[in-house]
Amino acid sequence: MIPHEIISGIQPSDGKILDAARKHTGKLAIPAGALGRLHDISEKLCAIQGTLKPVVNKKACLVIAGDHGVAAENISIFPQTVTGEMVRNFLAGGAGINALAREVGAEVWVLDLGIIPNISPESGPAFGRWEVNKIARGTANLAAGPAMSRQQAEEALHRGFNLAQEAFAAGVDLLGVGDMGIGNTTPSTAIAAVITGQPLSRLVGRGTGLDGHGLAHKQQIVHKALEINRPDPHDGLDVLAKVGGFEIGGIAGCVLAAAYYKHPVVIDGLISTAGALIAHNLCPTVNDYLFAGHCSQEPAHKIMLTHLGLEPILNLDLRLGEGTGAALAMGIVSAAARVFREVLTFEQAGVTAGLP
Amino acid sequence: MIPHEIISGIQPSDGKILDAARKHTGKLAIPAGALGRLHDISEKLCAIQGTLKPVVNKKACLVIAGDHGVAAENISIFPQTVTGEMVRNFLAGGAGINALAREVGAEVWVLDLGIIPNISPESGPAFGRWEVNKIARGTANLAAGPAMSRQQAEEALHRGFNLAQEAFAAGVDLLGVGDMGIGNTTPSTAIAAVITGQPLSRLVGRGTGLDGHGLAHKQQIVHKALEINRPDPHDGLDVLAKVGGFEIGGIAGCVLAAAYYKHPVVIDGLISTAGALIAHNLCPTVNDYLFAGHCSQEPAHKIMLTHLGLEPILNLDLRLGEGTGAALAMGIVSAAARVFREVLTFEQAGVTAGLP
Repeated sequence: MIPHEIISGIQPSDGKILDAARKHTGKLAIPAGALGRLHDISEKLCAIQGTLKPVVNKKACLVIAGDHGVAAENISIFPQTVTGEMVRNFLAGGAGINALAREVGAEVWVLDLGIIPNISPESGPAFGRWEVNKIARGTANLAAGPAMSRQQAEEALHRGFNLAQEAFAAGVDLLGVGDMGIGNTTPSTAIAAVITGQPLSRLVGRGTGLDGHGLAHKQQIVHKALEINRPDPHDGLDVLAKVGGFEIGGIAGCVLAAAYYKHPVVIDGLISTAGALIAHNLCPTVNDYLFAGHCSQEPAHKIMLTHLGLEPILNLDLRLGEGTGAALAMGIVSAAARVFREVLTFEQAGVTAGLP
Repeated sequence: MIPHEIISGIQPSDGKILDAARKHTGKLAIPAGALGRLHDISEKLCAIQGTLKPVVNKKACLVIAGDHGVAAENISIFPQTVTGEMVRNFLAGGAGINALAREVGAEVWVLDLGIIPNISPESGPAFGRWEVNKIARGTANLAAGPAMSRQQAEEALHRGFNLAQEAFAAGVDLLGVGDMGIGNTTPSTAIAAVITGQPLSRLVGRGTGLDGHGLAHKQQIVHKALEINRPDPHDGLDVLAKVGGFEIGGIAGCVLAAAYYKHPVVIDGLISTAGALIAHNLCPTVNDYLFAGHCSQEPAHKIMLTHLGLEPILNLDLRLGEGTGAALAMGIVSAAARVFREVLTFEQAGVTAGLP
């Protein structure tokens, strides 16, 4: 089990500050509510940080990678070798997440929780961190049995928790989480099915680009995984172990750490939201600390966000993963904080009839 | 009439570059189309800039202000004095547009095309520009006759055109346009009604916060304006003169200038989209250069964007104006350009099976 002290150490965000933040918003030289979602974001941030001066000084995207035994079932159009190749690309700064993180001024921290190849340490990233902490060289095939042991699932959570803890210790105050792992929409969709209870026909999507035949096959594989493993929907660790992935567990650990240390965390698409579902299953209070970066083209994603009660910040038809949607949305969170901090009140600005 | 040389000088963006840009996107180390709208944005930007190395080096939000005679009809919850007070707030750096422009690294250029008070030049902005070029101290009441003369409408277009021209000369390569003017959702909605042909019941909105009674009254005023003035929907300048506003004309001029000089321009909400409708009416080719920053809570806005065939980048329930949604979306446009420029191709990154 996840140490009781982590779960019991997670406290709700500050409701009194939330009320005070809403009052402050009402005084800004902006017609009531006219910046819409930006107000919701900044007020939630105030409650998380426990202040009426919300700040985003240092951003980091934690991108966790792992391989998946279920890749043997031909559920992706990309070969499994692409996981390691894309990790190399992250370290070279040449991937989507690198470009978007640079745009919003975020570091990229990459954690290998269990990809098959060894990426040598000298290929460290231009900025950010590179950490190898393999649980195993890929999960087992979840269509033939559990993806991992319960102990491995705990490990994945712990190592993700520790990475986020290090980020906070390094001064990061806004976290994004992302993933890399060929085949990982399959475990993520399985997790969505178990936890939301929705039928597979509404959940299974094309991932990186399956055709109609591939989609039907993928649905059969997810169905088989659920039949064989019968994960307990009331035990997030059981769900993670039986039909999850190392990076999904790591992301769940990051989410727990964000809530534990009272920092905001922006989740990305299907895979990182599967991680958030696991964390939420273990401790529903994590929601107070979560922002949904975007809504993916994967059909399950919207359903998962609804289950979490989260409204996505962006809707740009993204379905890349890597933390790309989270990175972009971190820019919006930062903008919302700035509006809250820097816009003058009607009174300060000398604007008549502030509250007409 | 708008000088023939401006209209005839506006050329479509580069279709060959657009095709080449789409091909380049297909080679990036990203599953086909997985960054969704970001690809559309970067490819359109390539076609506008005529290059496969799209850049956003310098951003500016041009915020144009004017007062409105129709304010006498009690169609806003804010008194007319707020126009000038908010302009002062822009110059002090204390408004929503200032905070958001700072966040995305954009300058704020404020142009007074006809507010009632004189704001003294010494209260210039901390960064950006402040220019006074009044056409008149507010428009006439469009519910009682034309808002302005045809000559004044031409002037508004020209002065907006010139401001954007100066911005481009100063190195700005991504423009946002915004507005300030108490009462200006009324002329903008009237323009939307004339040009889209949709009924007022689908168009009229609450502006800065009208209640149900105020909304019904506003609808009557717009109706009256259209009845009295009978603007010619095939003559954008007539529409602008009869039911427009100085800042709306100025924004239309900025849009024409962006198209003329082949630069991208991000429009904001209801008011700047009314400006875009006028520009589009004069020269439909301007669409090649337009990005819709967001979709406002004002009901007319979505209908206007559909008329222009534009998909909004953001959907954050904003309804502030000032260029705030444009500023936020400029960050996304810049991010899209960066992805296009900086993400390695499958081949460069050494990723297997680039096109599975």
